[in-house]
Amino acid sequence: MGENIGAAARVMANFGLADLRLVAPRDGWPNEKAEAMAAGALEGPVSAAVFADLDAAIADLTYVVAATARPRHLEKPVLVPGEAAGELRARGAGTAVLFGAEKSGLPNEAVARADAIVTYPVDSAFPSLNLAQAVGVFAYAWATGAGPAEPLARPEPASKKETRDLVDHLLAELEEARFFFPPEKVEMMELNVRAAFDRAGLTSQEVSTLRGAIKALANGPKRRRSE
Amino acid sequence: MGENIGAAARVMANFGLADLRLVAPRDGWPNEKAEAMAAGALEGPVSAAVFADLDAAIADLTYVVAATARPRHLEKPVLVPGEAAGELRARGAGTAVLFGAEKSGLPNEAVARADAIVTYPVDSAFPSLNLAQAVGVFAYAWATGAGPAEPLARPEPASKKETRDLVDHLLAELEEARFFFPPEKVEMMELNVRAAFDRAGLTSQEVSTLRGAIKALANGPKRRRSE
Repeated sequence: MGENIGAAARVMANFGLADLRLVAPRDGWPNEKAEAMAAGALEGPVSAAVFADLDAAIADLTYVVAATARPRHLEKPVLVPGEAAGELRARGAGTAVLFGAEKSGLPNEAVARADAIVTYPVDSAFPSLNLAQAVGVFAYAWATGAGPAEPLARPEPASKKETRDLVDHLLAELEEARFFFPPEKVEMMELNVRAAFDRAGLTSQEVSTLRGAIKALANGPKRRRSE
Repeated sequence: MGENIGAAARVMANFGLADLRLVAPRDGWPNEKAEAMAAGALEGPVSAAVFADLDAAIADLTYVVAATARPRHLEKPVLVPGEAAGELRARGAGTAVLFGAEKSGLPNEAVARADAIVTYPVDSAFPSLNLAQAVGVFAYAWATGAGPAEPLARPEPASKKETRDLVDHLLAELEEARFFFPPEKVEMMELNVRAAFDRAGLTSQEVSTLRGAIKALANGPKRRRSE
């Protein structure tokens, strides 16, 4: 909804956040209702970029948190907004929070791509938070979080695309090795494997090592001899 | 504006605040636009009472904080939302936060009646906060202000031994696939792989999935045919 996007942009600008990425916005872009609700935020303070899908939107990022009320049994850290804001601040550039459409929320495959989940301490009797309010609360938590926190000494993280390509490579080789049986299991296993590798926060070097490892296993000397 | 009142009521309900007092609402009360934006919050979770003026609205209260961006040289404590929420919680019943109309804010005589001022850490280049967002941020600060936080539910982690066995299995298969070349690289690669899997904090289920994957790759159909 354009109104929610505009209201989200406005409160981002209030709290100093400038980089808005839209994934396939329902009503197209630019959007008049968004501009009206943004009260000027989209005319300078906040830049909005449109992406065809989530993978494209997060390809250059290194750490992504998904806002969802339903952890759906994915094995990911669950953070409150203040903690999530702290994580993003500590990691510096290349981070994002994912928000879904207000009614439906984020689909499973979007949550699966995240490194962690952020969930809001809402009253269980009235849990449905307006999308722009969810963005506003996060933006406030970000603005009041401990100032540019100590950058943790961390090795160069892999981009989301590197990690995704690694998992795609593994899944393709597993497919060829007839690993997915019965076929109904494919989707859940894929989610599990993606979740595990996302959570690992692999470095570029590790991704490269693991890709070599997959290649070696899939095309080991015995296997090469057979061809 | 009815829309702002409704959106404020909705986010109050999200964070467990139930008592809304309206001072001479511009468009009268009840208000259809407020009800639409409240998404049900005004039909139970939040009760709205209308007062003719501010003095009547706060007559029975003991501590009131005024939300304003402009302290106007009044000699009052200036708090950020988290501090204001803490003050209200500490004082118990009989407390309130005053918010003004979105465009004009609170008039001087309203701010003068407050015990303290709450001001939001907004970007000075884009300071105009939507009224419902201001209420939302306060409500969130109130909800997270104190009290024992719920212990977060975490999935069953794999034991250190399970993760170590997984890495041993992978390394043994890689050894057989002649992956480690030159031999001097073995130790560093082993360290890298162990570090990545340790950091992932795998669950037992994920360890089991990954062991199946390694086995499938190492003994894929082509490889079996060659033996």
